[in-house]
Amino acid sequence: MKSAATRPLALTKPLALTMGDPAGIGGELTLRAWLALRGRGPAFIALDDPGRLADLALGLGLTVPIHVMRDAAAATEVFGSALPVLPVALAASPVPGQPDPANARAVVGSIERAAELCLHGDAGGVVTNPINKAALYQSGFAYPGHTEFLAALTGATGRQIMMLASPMLRVVPVTVHASLRDSIAMLTSGMITAAARTTQAALRRDFGIVAPRLAVAGLNPHAGEQGALGGEETSLIQPAIDTLRSEGIDVSGPWPPDTMFTPGARARYDVAICMYHDQALIPLKTLDMDHGVNVTLGLPIVRTSPDHGTAFDIAGKGVADPASLIAAIELAGRLAERRSAG
Amino acid sequence: MKSAATRPLALTKPLALTMGDPAGIGGELTLRAWLALRGRGPAFIALDDPGRLADLALGLGLTVPIHVMRDAAAATEVFGSALPVLPVALAASPVPGQPDPANARAVVGSIERAAELCLHGDAGGVVTNPINKAALYQSGFAYPGHTEFLAALTGATGRQIMMLASPMLRVVPVTVHASLRDSIAMLTSGMITAAARTTQAALRRDFGIVAPRLAVAGLNPHAGEQGALGGEETSLIQPAIDTLRSEGIDVSGPWPPDTMFTPGARARYDVAICMYHDQALIPLKTLDMDHGVNVTLGLPIVRTSPDHGTAFDIAGKGVADPASLIAAIELAGRLAERRSAG
Repeated sequence: MKSAATRPLALTKPLALTMGDPAGIGGELTLRAWLALRGRGPAFIALDDPGRLADLALGLGLTVPIHVMRDAAAATEVFGSALPVLPVALAASPVPGQPDPANARAVVGSIERAAELCLHGDAGGVVTNPINKAALYQSGFAYPGHTEFLAALTGATGRQIMMLASPMLRVVPVTVHASLRDSIAMLTSGMITAAARTTQAALRRDFGIVAPRLAVAGLNPHAGEQGALGGEETSLIQPAIDTLRSEGIDVSGPWPPDTMFTPGARARYDVAICMYHDQALIPLKTLDMDHGVNVTLGLPIVRTSPDHGTAFDIAGKGVADPASLIAAIELAGRLAERRSAG
Repeated sequence: MKSAATRPLALTKPLALTMGDPAGIGGELTLRAWLALRGRGPAFIALDDPGRLADLALGLGLTVPIHVMRDAAAATEVFGSALPVLPVALAASPVPGQPDPANARAVVGSIERAAELCLHGDAGGVVTNPINKAALYQSGFAYPGHTEFLAALTGATGRQIMMLASPMLRVVPVTVHASLRDSIAMLTSGMITAAARTTQAALRRDFGIVAPRLAVAGLNPHAGEQGALGGEETSLIQPAIDTLRSEGIDVSGPWPPDTMFTPGARARYDVAICMYHDQALIPLKTLDMDHGVNVTLGLPIVRTSPDHGTAFDIAGKGVADPASLIAAIELAGRLAERRSAG
């Protein structure tokens, strides 16, 4: 899974990096990501407030020249010597750790502009910095999160799903942001097959895996032990696997959840289809906390994001770790390259 | 957590190693564990059928002299040059992969004898090879497993719990062998406090940790996110933590399950108290599949076991990996040493 990371990128279009909540760590991460990637790429253009980025760089003691752009056209050439920024003006000066509804319009506008750049062919993909949903809801934002908003902006059809990818493991949680009890109650064969189909298509198109191998987790300890420890493997998961197999998808399982993330087991699949949030996220973060990237599958555009939130508690302190954002930009670059080639 | 492993052992009494199901991989593991440990210990005495072990060694091409003992007294001296065996006769010649109810009496007898040796002060602890419960049930065995049987044999009071320990992580699942749905339904504050108290006492007494730090996991994604993703953190887990704190136990949580097993997080606790089987077992096996050891806490005797089953599918083929049994013997040796010193 690592080989693609070391190939030089043939991308000519920049990626579009959103602002995220300006009271969070997004701005600092943007600056640090430019410092890390300026020499090797992939190039990106920030949809952000140039003044606040310049202030932030000064405050953090980071030498990051800001190049204000009119459009994304020359961003890739500029990127080696300055951070290209397409201006999105803030209404209020951001205070670290204190989200301000007055800036919600700019946060949303940054995402809209990033999607537009992709749809017009001016950017290769979108990478989103973390937002604070509560602050946006107060200002009338009506989407559960980035994914649904981007789906609406890009006219996506079908269902979007989240894949988390690190150099050691790819996972797709079939149920996500619900209590564990509700996650079990809402699980259906149809959700499993839909997630698996979207995953398989994305691995073929964007990840360059010709015949993706999907491993489906059981829900219960020991995958239910023939019904002694739970029936969902028999009633929901095996039927989904049978359906997927009949469609020619290379799928195995249901696997006992506790033994399917060992090195030997991981070598036998390209992605694990997981039944609930922590079944997917525990092994991913246990193996590689810093380089997990969130990839949205099922959108007409490439979109990745770092696997963490706004981190208001450390915003403005100069201690934010850009590893996950850098990994998200690098992965978006590889996916965009493959789309533009394919 | 590793330092104790490298100190020389001061144990004078051998450990008692049970036969397990003779159709499984237990015999092969016993032979291979002796080959690995003969030079450095800890010494153990096998409660097994000497003839079947000798046949097995011959069949597998392993040079393991068998020393038939009358009691455990000289086992430690013998151990460097031969495998000490206290005979437990099988009724039928075992066939690899095919458990035979005719041998159930010997399987049970081996466990009984091991417990006796400990209770009489002739052995420092019990290490159990894997059994096949179905085969034992057919012969009238009335206990859910090893743990309950050993509790009865040793007159244990209170509740026994399972801890899984590897060099990288210790976990205690509060609910174990039930479906995920039932595990959630049965979880109570009382189960969490009982498991935490037993764990704290065992870490102090047997593991030599003066002030053990317990980290309690949440049940839901993001530990419920203030109730948005589930209420058990508020209704069950936090009250248990409050109770434990009022008793002077060093306990933290409820932690978001997906981020509590990263290297940085693990450095801040000695054991993770987990709400369900896979929440505990996924990180343990993902980090270290081969060296996980099952430790029974709350028994009057030391007892460990390897973290795998009878493996009927590979029994007799010479490919069984003794790493977990060796780790179980080594850990039992350290725990026994600390008990005999304390």
